[in-house]
Amino acid sequence: MERISTATISRLSQYYRTLERLIERKIQTVSSDEIAEIDSVTSAQVRKDLSFFGSFGRRGLGYDTTDLKNNIGTILGLDKIWNVALIGVGNIGRALVDYGEFKKQGFIIKLLFDSDPEKIGKKINELLILPFSDIQTYLKAENIQIAIVAVPARVAQNVVNTLVESDIRAILNFAPISLKVPSGIMIKNENMAIELEALSFYLKNKLKK
Amino acid sequence: MERISTATISRLSQYYRTLERLIERKIQTVSSDEIAEIDSVTSAQVRKDLSFFGSFGRRGLGYDTTDLKNNIGTILGLDKIWNVALIGVGNIGRALVDYGEFKKQGFIIKLLFDSDPEKIGKKINELLILPFSDIQTYLKAENIQIAIVAVPARVAQNVVNTLVESDIRAILNFAPISLKVPSGIMIKNENMAIELEALSFYLKNKLKK
Repeated sequence: MERISTATISRLSQYYRTLERLIERKIQTVSSDEIAEIDSVTSAQVRKDLSFFGSFGRRGLGYDTTDLKNNIGTILGLDKIWNVALIGVGNIGRALVDYGEFKKQGFIIKLLFDSDPEKIGKKINELLILPFSDIQTYLKAENIQIAIVAVPARVAQNVVNTLVESDIRAILNFAPISLKVPSGIMIKNENMAIELEALSFYLKNKLKK
Repeated sequence: MERISTATISRLSQYYRTLERLIERKIQTVSSDEIAEIDSVTSAQVRKDLSFFGSFGRRGLGYDTTDLKNNIGTILGLDKIWNVALIGVGNIGRALVDYGEFKKQGFIIKLLFDSDPEKIGKKINELLILPFSDIQTYLKAENIQIAIVAVPARVAQNVVNTLVESDIRAILNFAPISLKVPSGIMIKNENMAIELEALSFYLKNKLKK
């Protein structure tokens, strides 16, 4: 498969949600022009993004919304279950345990870790908080594929190093710090301020939506 | 100013962070090719995105990292302070009150609201939790420009309606539901599952980073 940029993958996630909303509204077909309009990209971009994976639509007829959603879901790996470990059970961590969108897309938080003795041994939603010092054993036993890091910035790199040593290849980082990983490991940084910047831009420039 | 897509604004936020990291590493100039490489977009895209706002770099010499960061910051409205109200003090809400990245970019959470009598009157980080029923009075008194909605999905549309009636024009929504607002109001939805989908895509397709 051709190398696909992270920007393309992010747009596929966006198209996926657009399709979900169209399906909710009982809309059965959609053109690349319509997807482009909703998602603020060019229709050429939509067609190019989808062309990486073969041709889904029929010329002149547009895409079947359910087929296209399912195809994109398969591309994104949303057709299977992913076992996730969450490291750091502070406020963000607790919010993530309860976050329904993860489970809906097949991301199942199976293990919780913390290094605070006050938290270890307690439960959140039936999940026991385990000691971070034992993480390597648990990750392998439970076949964890993805780790979410929600620890303070000052310990995040150490946590990520331990995950890499435990053969975790995909990490979502909530700590507000840029982390180093060897090649072959994918790390994504979640920065919740980014969306606020689109709002301040809008307010500052008084754009019409 | 020409109409600018939300995708462009999101890329500007990305360039801004890339520049911050380059400045941390004491790098003084950068080319659009280099920014493009780091951010996985084409250099033509970088130049086009920046061209909306005038010409910053000097041909053949690249961009001064500090100047470009400051210019993008001004474009995004990060050169001023924004007063923010947070509605819903559950796990996500509590995490956001503590989230250092907001304050760093000039987004100051000044008011907290909830409708749970158990929470109203308590404090988080010196901020009193106020009753949602009185929100209109407080929003005006404190000159709030941006609202963050971190309430359960089933009440989110009602909360947003109240915000719109209170002349709030910019809303960041964490509830996993698509919300309706009149034209002239900007709403952004934060979906924390999106970044996980880039990871499942990577694992499924075994791409090299």
